[in-house]
Amino acid sequence: MRSNYIVIEGLEGAGKTTARNTVVETLKQHGIEEMVFTREPGGTQLAEKLRSLVLDIKSVGDEVITDKAEVMMFYAARVQLVETVIKPALESGSWVIGDRHDLSTQAYQGGGRGIDQQMLATLRDAVLGDFRPNLTLYLDVTPEVGLKRARARGELDRIEQESLDFFNRTRARYRELAAADSSIRTVDATQPLDDVLRDIRQTVTDWLKEQQA
Amino acid sequence: MRSNYIVIEGLEGAGKTTARNTVVETLKQHGIEEMVFTREPGGTQLAEKLRSLVLDIKSVGDEVITDKAEVMMFYAARVQLVETVIKPALESGSWVIGDRHDLSTQAYQGGGRGIDQQMLATLRDAVLGDFRPNLTLYLDVTPEVGLKRARARGELDRIEQESLDFFNRTRARYRELAAADSSIRTVDATQPLDDVLRDIRQTVTDWLKEQQA
Repeated sequence: MRSNYIVIEGLEGAGKTTARNTVVETLKQHGIEEMVFTREPGGTQLAEKLRSLVLDIKSVGDEVITDKAEVMMFYAARVQLVETVIKPALESGSWVIGDRHDLSTQAYQGGGRGIDQQMLATLRDAVLGDFRPNLTLYLDVTPEVGLKRARARGELDRIEQESLDFFNRTRARYRELAAADSSIRTVDATQPLDDVLRDIRQTVTDWLKEQQA
Repeated sequence: MRSNYIVIEGLEGAGKTTARNTVVETLKQHGIEEMVFTREPGGTQLAEKLRSLVLDIKSVGDEVITDKAEVMMFYAARVQLVETVIKPALESGSWVIGDRHDLSTQAYQGGGRGIDQQMLATLRDAVLGDFRPNLTLYLDVTPEVGLKRARARGELDRIEQESLDFFNRTRARYRELAAADSSIRTVDATQPLDDVLRDIRQTVTDWLKEQQA
């Protein structure tokens, strides 16, 4: 059985929601109708409770959440979502379109927080085995552009409040991982919106053709 | 700097609380006064919230918490406690007396749930490095005896509601790990209480002597 799991990745304000709509539209134009949407962290009752705990400002008062506890909570939420939502949907023949997945942890915690990348890869392999998205669309923006858009949307969460340096390290890791993995396709999301959407349509269409070849 | 971290382990109803009082009394008789007490999962605001999520019946409605998500939540709580409470206490020269630590995960999740033991060891090493208790007192009881005592105390939590088979597998793993590690000392907790307490006093006293030798 082929599985069809597409993930959209990028910094805050990269335009993931708009991108998702364009991905869905492109898939529909290719006759794909059955889709399940996920976001991480979240997507199950347990994962949403973990999301609040890890992202809400002051979810644990003044206690500082350690980097490693943060990582373990992301993985707890992720494995719950993968096992109870994503895998069953793929097995039933549905497509799954995800807002963030493991690449976020590799970029934010590995790049931004500076957690040992080998340790993160070990954790990923231990809990997820060889489960991976089939296509990841990485929307590349500078933190300056992304954060400006995110701020315009309203309140920032615990991680969104990090420094510009943190997001520069996160972006650098995103780009490094994208360059090394052909299942990750980069779209320049600093372009005017119409050009970004055109590139997303083109990327998805090209990928679909490759799958049929 | 020597660190002094003593953990008490065992099935539900093994007598961990009584054992802790005897450990404290024995340490005091040897002039040790400064002690910090921990329990797992728990012991920080974040860890207590994770404890509720993982142990309370119906914390996430009818959603079934997957084995791997459970493990990751235990490790999130554990690493938060180790980094923010246990290590700072040990570094300040205090003793730490813990009600459960990593051995519980190896026994309950590795033995009871049947999660791959190599995976659990990998997770432990990834998040805790080589941090280990200096002494673990393992109170060995049969599940029949332990669960009878635990039930007499009141409501059972999500894990305490598991089957007798689950606890038999958990106990077998506890015994196997205790036999392989000289820092784990087993006390036969099915004996009459006076004999159990005598064995605990003797075990702690012997261990203290070995440390001074």
